[in-house]
Amino acid sequence: MTETRPTPPADYTQIAYAVADRIATITLDRPRARNGYTITMADELADAVGRADRDPEVRVVVLTGRGRDFCVGADLSEGGFDVDAETGADETWQEPAGRVSRRIFAADKPVIAVLQGAAVGAGLTITLAADYRLASTDARFGFVFTRRGIYPEGASVWFLPRLVGMGRALDWMISGRVFDAAEARRTGLVHSVHEPADLLPAAYALATELVTTTAPVSVAVTRRMLYRMSGVDSPGPVHRLDSRLIASVAHNPDAVEGVLSFLQKRPPEFGGVVPDDLPDFLPRHEEDDT
Amino acid sequence: MTETRPTPPADYTQIAYAVADRIATITLDRPRARNGYTITMADELADAVGRADRDPEVRVVVLTGRGRDFCVGADLSEGGFDVDAETGADETWQEPAGRVSRRIFAADKPVIAVLQGAAVGAGLTITLAADYRLASTDARFGFVFTRRGIYPEGASVWFLPRLVGMGRALDWMISGRVFDAAEARRTGLVHSVHEPADLLPAAYALATELVTTTAPVSVAVTRRMLYRMSGVDSPGPVHRLDSRLIASVAHNPDAVEGVLSFLQKRPPEFGGVVPDDLPDFLPRHEEDDT
Amino acid sequence: MTETRPTPPADYTQIAYAVADRIATITLDRPRARNGYTITMADELADAVGRADRDPEVRVVVLTGRGRDFCVGADLSEGGFDVDAETGADETWQEPAGRVSRRIFAADKPVIAVLQGAAVGAGLTITLAADYRLASTDARFGFVFTRRGIYPEGASVWFLPRLVGMGRALDWMISGRVFDAAEARRTGLVHSVHEPADLLPAAYALATELVTTTAPVSVAVTRRMLYRMSGVDSPGPVHRLDSRLIASVAHNPDAVEGVLSFLQKRPPEFGGVVPDDLPDFLPRHEEDDT
Repeated sequence: MTETRPTPPADYTQIAYAVADRIATITLDRPRARNGYTITMADELADAVGRADRDPEVRVVVLTGRGRDFCVGADLSEGGFDVDAETGADETWQEPAGRVSRRIFAADKPVIAVLQGAAVGAGLTITLAADYRLASTDARFGFVFTRRGIYPEGASVWFLPRLVGMGRALDWMISGRVFDAAEARRTGLVHSVHEPADLLPAAYALATELVTTTAPVSVAVTRRMLYRMSGVDSPGPVHRLDSRLIASVAHNPDAVEGVLSFLQKRPPEFGGVVPDDLPDFLPRHEEDDT
Repeated sequence: MTETRPTPPADYTQIAYAVADRIATITLDRPRARNGYTITMADELADAVGRADRDPEVRVVVLTGRGRDFCVGADLSEGGFDVDAETGADETWQEPAGRVSRRIFAADKPVIAVLQGAAVGAGLTITLAADYRLASTDARFGFVFTRRGIYPEGASVWFLPRLVGMGRALDWMISGRVFDAAEARRTGLVHSVHEPADLLPAAYALATELVTTTAPVSVAVTRRMLYRMSGVDSPGPVHRLDSRLIASVAHNPDAVEGVLSFLQKRPPEFGGVVPDDLPDFLPRHEEDDT
Repeated sequence: MTETRPTPPADYTQIAYAVADRIATITLDRPRARNGYTITMADELADAVGRADRDPEVRVVVLTGRGRDFCVGADLSEGGFDVDAETGADETWQEPAGRVSRRIFAADKPVIAVLQGAAVGAGLTITLAADYRLASTDARFGFVFTRRGIYPEGASVWFLPRLVGMGRALDWMISGRVFDAAEARRTGLVHSVHEPADLLPAAYALATELVTTTAPVSVAVTRRMLYRMSGVDSPGPVHRLDSRLIASVAHNPDAVEGVLSFLQKRPPEFGGVVPDDLPDFLPRHEEDDT
């Protein structure tokens, strides 16, 4: 994270990127191929998430797909991923779904995934690191790897049990079966389900609520703490970090504004900026160096 | 845990403490301030949980609040927590919600939290270490930290994903939104929901059931094992501890009584006492030294 | 796993073992004792799971009980487990439920547990390592240890929170209460609930679906990854394993067949064999040496 200002517009070829009202929208943009996942798309998505993450203007990221499907998974019409064309698959080669899911995991801003039609294979695993998955009533999901003779990717075996429990994860990943939005909602995989015409508006309404009501530094810290501190052995180390953070709020303008706006019953205006104003003592993972 | 007998009655100022029928009731007792959380209240609560935990007469703890609310969170009318007044916030300062949640975590007796009205901020995080959360139909919950420019406390980022999964934890903690008893029940945050007049009786009915049907040493061991052994890499080390415990039951009067009362179809009368009769080879965490 | 071919038929005395249509059926077979669990039954079950796991012909295991109950738990009519008769309960003694649950955990083939009537104590804990638990409408469940003065076994404190969350695990294991199929379904403990007459057919339908649609090597790898990689600190190490696996698929006949059969819209015919064709770089746990 040495780069702290937005990079100039990139010449993305398979995705679109736009910022408005402090919300970055990243759009999978191969609708004729049903947004079939490619290595180019993976690298453009990871770049775009990084761009939004570094841009102080951006508060929330909406990840969506153009057309009727979010993403049907690896573009098999082109033979899938051409591993050898990249590096001959040496030990450092990174499969493309994880390039995106790990970049979302490393982000300090919330990501809202917007899932319509097919969200299958990589088209589902890249969204598991998002903070919210919103779905349309016509969405269908599948971790179809065992039905293709391949393996889960995108570090999905790490994310999925945390979201829906090990029993449901075993079921979906062993059977590879396709399931619908109602099941995804009931099990907690998706946050809410909407009529197709209402889906994107619902995502922007949520994004706008996050922009207008929450302190960006608080959100970034909370996001990191949930993923990085929930795996420790006991609450002790977490409480020590909590204490250091709470002790710091007396000198934090956002905390003062939070209390004042609450007592004055008015919307808050938080001035803290991410990533510039993050505390320097947060726990780090290897993903933070992306 | 060097102290093994009940301390004399303490002069609590912001809580109440009473024992009857082997149930300790700890009551947040600032109803005019809607049980607003203070450092004094935190230290009194931690002390009271410790008192109940050490008292061989006590089998179950009921944690409740006087008035219409369980607890609205930090008492902002007094400016929140005055960190500097305590120690100048040096490295050993402990934020007050974790003082209570960690003491409940360390307890060897089940804790039933009784939540009516507002259970917000510290008024919610201190209950995450409880074994049961019962709620009234009018209860509302919120991890409102991002809306105040502050951070989750009480080691809540450790407890919450274990209770409701990472997806729901991200949603509640990032948005800071307030949610109702139905959502808390559906997601597993609370065990059951009751009409306001039925809430406290339901908690005592549950407490009485635990007192009359379960062996206190078994309960204490089970509670420790769930928290301390579920985080290991594989079932192997757990099975070794299971084996050592099961091998010990032939010489355990509670196990004999458990089998006999079952075969004789009568209520059991377990004689084991907590903490006196706990096996000496249970795994320990730093919390056990509180 | 040095042994790679099926052993000759064993003279099981308390269970039955049969293989048909690539499905191994293991049946608890003491219906007059309501399939009361004994050390002999435990060792025969562990042996039978190992047999199915090593047999290249077997793809899926169905674990069921003869009669109206799956298993009422330890056979108390014979005084429970006679620890001293085995080894005097030295440090290496293994309690019998974990002998089975750990062997199922170590298996490289999916296990479907079929639960009717009582599934209580060891009759429930041995199934927690199964990939699927299907239940009849008349099934009832209980982790009844605290009501008998004993302790959870079968490494159940490791499995249960992963399946249903810590809150539900605390409730069931502390109270020891018996609960019904609807609660088991709602909380995710069981995958589906069926009328008694439909239960076993539903299990075989699921087993057949797994046999006909999934690649056995993919299933084995997925199963190992979910349990062994979900506990690491961050997605990074998972992504490295994902990448190594995905890089290997170009030379994997099952992956070629998976893509071809999908594009040709025909059922796949996967030739990979478990355990012979497992990649040699998968992560291992101590259970893998059973």
